[in-house]
Amino acid sequence: MKTLIVYAHPEPRSLNGSLKDLAVATLEGAGHEVRVSDLYAMRWKPVVDAEDFGPSASSRLKLVADSGRAFDTGTLTPDVLAEQEKLLWADMIIFQFPLWWYTMPAILKGWVDRVFTYHFAYGVGEHNDVKYGERYGEGTLAGRRALLSVTVGGWESHYAERGINGPIDDLLFPFHHGILYYPGIEVLPPFVLYGADRTTDEEFPNIAKAWEQRLLTLESTEPIAFRRQNFGDYEIPSLSLKEGLEPAGRSGFGLHVRP
Amino acid sequence: MKTLIVYAHPEPRSLNGSLKDLAVATLEGAGHEVRVSDLYAMRWKPVVDAEDFGPSASSRLKLVADSGRAFDTGTLTPDVLAEQEKLLWADMIIFQFPLWWYTMPAILKGWVDRVFTYHFAYGVGEHNDVKYGERYGEGTLAGRRALLSVTVGGWESHYAERGINGPIDDLLFPFHHGILYYPGIEVLPPFVLYGADRTTDEEFPNIAKAWEQRLLTLESTEPIAFRRQNFGDYEIPSLSLKEGLEPAGRSGFGLHVRP
Repeated sequence: MKTLIVYAHPEPRSLNGSLKDLAVATLEGAGHEVRVSDLYAMRWKPVVDAEDFGPSASSRLKLVADSGRAFDTGTLTPDVLAEQEKLLWADMIIFQFPLWWYTMPAILKGWVDRVFTYHFAYGVGEHNDVKYGERYGEGTLAGRRALLSVTVGGWESHYAERGINGPIDDLLFPFHHGILYYPGIEVLPPFVLYGADRTTDEEFPNIAKAWEQRLLTLESTEPIAFRRQNFGDYEIPSLSLKEGLEPAGRSGFGLHVRP
Repeated sequence: MKTLIVYAHPEPRSLNGSLKDLAVATLEGAGHEVRVSDLYAMRWKPVVDAEDFGPSASSRLKLVADSGRAFDTGTLTPDVLAEQEKLLWADMIIFQFPLWWYTMPAILKGWVDRVFTYHFAYGVGEHNDVKYGERYGEGTLAGRRALLSVTVGGWESHYAERGINGPIDDLLFPFHHGILYYPGIEVLPPFVLYGADRTTDEEFPNIAKAWEQRLLTLESTEPIAFRRQNFGDYEIPSLSLKEGLEPAGRSGFGLHVRP
């Protein structure tokens, strides 16, 4: 298995840093190839702007068209090209990050904003009567799998079905479904650690054991059963889920997971 | 009304830039005071790191504790202090941004990550048997209102109740509820423009009219009725919504809005 770890935390001695290190050691120990994008250490530029597109930038910047032209002509910046190359190389992608304000840190969002260009991650495939592009289950990154490994400050009950912060699966849905499944990546159930700010050194061995267990069973773990866009579940082009496909009472983001 | 506009787009001549300019002109024309944080023009530093906390940074960085100590001792960086001051000055905050990959651009997330420090936006108030800090309806920024003005590439049906991208209210919930309502800000229903990449110059006058109409009625618009944390709807400290408070069939993020 070729694994890319995209890691976003400023402190190497943090819980996130330890989980990243453990993932590298565990996967390499099991004979897998591992590459790491350590965004803070790389001083990853987190902001999309005209510099990303070189000669393909319009004088009045058009992010969609300009990023697509830069992708097509190979004039994206070397840092973005390197990340696209790593994604194409990998068959497993692990994202290690803390949940800050209910979503990913800015530096990781900036990795998505810059690397997931037009014609690479979106704007792929034909639009016709039975197909609305290659996305949600199809696309450039089809055949790959991903896993979010997330540390969370609050308690597990705060992220449960009736918890005040909202269910963790719904909070992660935009990343799981909108970012990863969109260009074709299958998404494994996340590895979530709650109460991360209060984790003690004594608790770490148990956390490490649970994480190793997940890492060593990645290949046999079933992905989340998101519905594919172009295979009959949705009206095209409204992309509305057809009536009657969901179990009674299911609504919201959960509609887009097969029962 | 004192309005702060936090604006995140790299191209001044974009639809987002035009909506920001129109908001300034419309609100000033109606006699309101307006300040703008133009994050790209300010070259806003989007990434939290040890430099944010000056002498309060631990050698092994602890984001929560270090940001709280820097806030308490006035040693946050001038750029962060200036944004906190603007938030305290404002009674209305408008966020103007494009939805990129189902959430805000990295530069705006970085504004949240850096400005919403411990003891300013979270870690405020007592924890006891009837109160779990001042948050979700109480906090430093109580008494203020906010509005998200968002441009979206896809079609409105793709963001409807059964749309493949998920309902727009659910996609915006982490920002509305988790970021704004958390430190006490009341949140107005968003202003959302769909199909933004295909908007023509001919369509702009109608968009402008709708936006002016929203801007001139901000003070009389009812906020989203999010449930307050410490006033009987939630168990403490599990912060689980008490049974039976919601209309039949409501689930997910929608539980946290009063019927």
